[in-house]
Amino acid sequence: MYRTHNNGALRANHINETVTLAGWVQKTRDKGFMIWVDLRDRYGITQLIFDEERTPKDVMERAKTLGREFVIQVTGNVIERESKNPKMPTGDVELLVEELSILNEAKTPPFTIEDATDGGEDLRMKYRYLDIRRNPVKEKLIFRHKVSIAVRNYLSEKGFIEVETPYLIKSTPEGARDFVVPSRMNEGQFYALPQSPQTFKQLLMVGGMDKYFQIVKCFRDEDLRADRQPEFTQIDCEMAFVEQEDILNVFEGLTKHLLKEVVGFEIENFPRMTYDEAMAKYGNDKPDIRFGMEFGELNAVAQHKDFKIFNEAELVVGIAMPGGAAYTRKEIDALVDWVKRPQVGALGMVYVKYNEDGSFKSSVDKFYDQDDLAQWAAVTGAKPGDLICLLSGETFKTRTQLSALRMELANRLGLRKSDEFAPLWVVDFPLLEWDEETERYHAMHHPFTSPKPGQMELLDTNPGDVKANAYDLVLNGNEIGGGSIRIHDKETQSKMFDYLGFTKEEAQAQFGFLMDAFQYGAPPHGGLAFGLDRLVAILGGQETIRDFIAFPKNNAGRDVMIDAPAKIDEDQLKELNLKITL
Amino acid sequence: MYRTHNNGALRANHINETVTLAGWVQKTRDKGFMIWVDLRDRYGITQLIFDEERTPKDVMERAKTLGREFVIQVTGNVIERESKNPKMPTGDVELLVEELSILNEAKTPPFTIEDATDGGEDLRMKYRYLDIRRNPVKEKLIFRHKVSIAVRNYLSEKGFIEVETPYLIKSTPEGARDFVVPSRMNEGQFYALPQSPQTFKQLLMVGGMDKYFQIVKCFRDEDLRADRQPEFTQIDCEMAFVEQEDILNVFEGLTKHLLKEVVGFEIENFPRMTYDEAMAKYGNDKPDIRFGMEFGELNAVAQHKDFKIFNEAELVVGIAMPGGAAYTRKEIDALVDWVKRPQVGALGMVYVKYNEDGSFKSSVDKFYDQDDLAQWAAVTGAKPGDLICLLSGETFKTRTQLSALRMELANRLGLRKSDEFAPLWVVDFPLLEWDEETERYHAMHHPFTSPKPGQMELLDTNPGDVKANAYDLVLNGNEIGGGSIRIHDKETQSKMFDYLGFTKEEAQAQFGFLMDAFQYGAPPHGGLAFGLDRLVAILGGQETIRDFIAFPKNNAGRDVMIDAPAKIDEDQLKELNLKITL
Repeated sequence: MYRTHNNGALRANHINETVTLAGWVQKTRDKGFMIWVDLRDRYGITQLIFDEERTPKDVMERAKTLGREFVIQVTGNVIERESKNPKMPTGDVELLVEELSILNEAKTPPFTIEDATDGGEDLRMKYRYLDIRRNPVKEKLIFRHKVSIAVRNYLSEKGFIEVETPYLIKSTPEGARDFVVPSRMNEGQFYALPQSPQTFKQLLMVGGMDKYFQIVKCFRDEDLRADRQPEFTQIDCEMAFVEQEDILNVFEGLTKHLLKEVVGFEIENFPRMTYDEAMAKYGNDKPDIRFGMEFGELNAVAQHKDFKIFNEAELVVGIAMPGGAAYTRKEIDALVDWVKRPQVGALGMVYVKYNEDGSFKSSVDKFYDQDDLAQWAAVTGAKPGDLICLLSGETFKTRTQLSALRMELANRLGLRKSDEFAPLWVVDFPLLEWDEETERYHAMHHPFTSPKPGQMELLDTNPGDVKANAYDLVLNGNEIGGGSIRIHDKETQSKMFDYLGFTKEEAQAQFGFLMDAFQYGAPPHGGLAFGLDRLVAILGGQETIRDFIAFPKNNAGRDVMIDAPAKIDEDQLKELNLKITL
Repeated sequence: MYRTHNNGALRANHINETVTLAGWVQKTRDKGFMIWVDLRDRYGITQLIFDEERTPKDVMERAKTLGREFVIQVTGNVIERESKNPKMPTGDVELLVEELSILNEAKTPPFTIEDATDGGEDLRMKYRYLDIRRNPVKEKLIFRHKVSIAVRNYLSEKGFIEVETPYLIKSTPEGARDFVVPSRMNEGQFYALPQSPQTFKQLLMVGGMDKYFQIVKCFRDEDLRADRQPEFTQIDCEMAFVEQEDILNVFEGLTKHLLKEVVGFEIENFPRMTYDEAMAKYGNDKPDIRFGMEFGELNAVAQHKDFKIFNEAELVVGIAMPGGAAYTRKEIDALVDWVKRPQVGALGMVYVKYNEDGSFKSSVDKFYDQDDLAQWAAVTGAKPGDLICLLSGETFKTRTQLSALRMELANRLGLRKSDEFAPLWVVDFPLLEWDEETERYHAMHHPFTSPKPGQMELLDTNPGDVKANAYDLVLNGNEIGGGSIRIHDKETQSKMFDYLGFTKEEAQAQFGFLMDAFQYGAPPHGGLAFGLDRLVAILGGQETIRDFIAFPKNNAGRDVMIDAPAKIDEDQLKELNLKITL
């Protein structure tokens, strides 16, 4: 047995016991006649003491050779520390070492194994096994485990069955982004890795599983924007005989449970908001509602004067920044520059200082009097001391720009607190969204999403207006889950594929199995999928997704530690029954 | 809301309540003035009654159109059944239907949705979503879920952290059997799908995770023997600072817990046996010890007479078949034919009837007297009424043949009871096994397995004798798990690769990251992996693995339901940055 206790275990009540510990040398302090070593493992740190007068000479000598990250085993007596360290759980005691084995030596690590390391991201990725020894990384992986197990137990208790769906499936027509896998046994044929288990979970509903979930890896071979991974983990759920309300209730329950169980945060409000409302109030379909600063639409109170820019705009909209009236002219100019950056894209910004004395000072005083500005303040909810920021232009773009400004100001004001959580449902999403590139409508969620009752007819006349039985779960300004009530009859599904530009043959070749299944008694069903990577990151305090993944890939999709992907040799290629020339 | 109760819920105490149910029509019985419908969902069956005198006329008429597997919703009053069915949990009541909605019609299913179906395997695979509606399949999937969640909670409570390891990794040199995945972002390069997370879990140990587990899909692109899958699920575990004994104890605990929790079976004995002992006593490294019939080695008591076949044999070995003395001459001849089948491969079989009167009658009475045969009986543990069966020849082959006979006889005698469980550890496996084809030694477990202390030197002189710190967990004659204490220093690992025929460059290119990691303070570590598919099948009563997989592939590696793998189109191939000609 390598150890009697771990390095987080020893307390005052262990004093005088003989124990054996094992772990890594975190640091050594050598005073010649006495050596202190911090011994670390997953569970904590215990201080070892080697004392010339009490420790055998050979042990003392070996202790002098210990370097950082050496793996050692020590046996000794637990003694009371002279200078206790109340910050360490084991800080009351230390181990007076009698025996020492060096289990493995260690080269000097390429970066410090400390909470705040000197290693940059690339280096830490290359030596990820050393990075994982650092508390912040280790704790994030443990946190992820806790979230997963809490999800599983909650859903399991609610009658959900975790069913494993296949990883080697069939490529879909939008499948340019599928990873494909040549099959040795089926010459010239390919599997695809699933982008989600969508069709399989629907088949499980047709199969009567009633409540399904799975924590499952999914794959997308696409350009990786920052903090995206080619393989990612989804909490995938589906229920039969449900309406939207049933699903919202179940996953509202799960979200509350997670926040309470894993983060210790109790939720009081769990608002629901339509997509249209979210866009109007926050300019965003995943609003952060930890803070206010709701949009005020100002067309009615800003388009009656000679200010041409506002008069010609489809939308004039503003927000009130608390305390912003204190901004200097220079600060305000910088803010105007900020909204004009290409990433935001506004052409300019109108502002109104709502002074503490109740007067207003604006960048458009030439056009608007104090009464006008007072109306603007009323509409945006501004109070004395606030700064009202107004943008104008085409509705969707202007909202998006103001949303960016709202988030920026909230960050500056410290309103996005990582230990506060404000979930909400955004419902009634549009069924379709216009794609500029292909100049046609695409399914906003996916082609299996059902339109709201009675809206199927609108498809031909006002496709952009058709609302779907689709919903997103939003937490702190991030979409952490999304789902829909599905189409469950062949006729509607077939029409939908038709509308989305599939030929009959394409639809049948790719999704025939699903439409066939619908003919054998498909129940009404719907579901939801959470992005586990993002959910964990947000619950863990809004850090990057990558930190919560044990072995992440970089922005080029590479695992730099194992150096993958890599070229493979000719023999392997031949074996694949593929004529591939590289 | 589609239902107030599920179809397994209603009891006598619900009588007089108005409830709404939804589900599938299992069967209908139409007596004209009265129609009974069995309504089914995952939770059970509830009998519906439509009665001319009490059910609205339009509902009655619609009820007449219901076919098998229609999806319906009904509302009505719970009433007491006239003829109760004590076999059904809901058998005390029925629902007098007042409202009926047909939620979806159904074509006649291609096979009956009954416990004993008329559908053959191919048909059931093609319509797996219908197969899953059948109780035996549905129950197996639910059972699998229960096993998984029990494993997770047990390991989690013991301090194991589930860490997700990557699916897109690097192909290994033995990687002819890897599935490879071309990368769009890294031209001409391939990921591989993992055959196991072996190296990653070792890196997690180097990273200080201390106790890791994962229930994870693994992949092997190889010819599929019956009941194998190209993708399979593993319970993968690893621990640091452990010796073999620590690992055996933890997973003995897990096995006992699963048997108790999921199957309701309490284990008293959990024997450990060396590989050598298992081979000598059962001719098998995964012996079924639910029954005896241990081997008796008879060289000493059978090689002193003129029976040339025995005298020239490396091994003479026998087993006693309880009650086998009652076999007729014809039955015994058939048994001799059975061992001579090519699948078994024995050249013949000597038998001894141990008559109830204490006398012996053998096929070699010409060479051996009653005293000789009495000695054989003593060595094989035969009792009056038993049949002693003897095989002879080269040791390993003869043992394997007798093991096959032992299993066959046990099956005939009904000794392999599916509701009895007898786990054991087989330990001290050989490190290497001889491969006839390549004419060299290969790692029996894998190249990361450590030899027993002090045996590394034997590698050069008696490689076949080197024992490994490797162990298998065996349950009812099946290997359900296997593992080892790993090598944890670069020097030994490097020697091992060298011994196994890797060049320095190959070893460095493929496993350099692991050997590098070993230089930064790798702790002693070891682990175990369970095959979840087989474990679940055995716990569930020894049925085929495929039954416990929601969407299995056939022996050609195809999912016939979705028709995968499939050809992909030219555009997709181009996108892969590969010049592939099909």
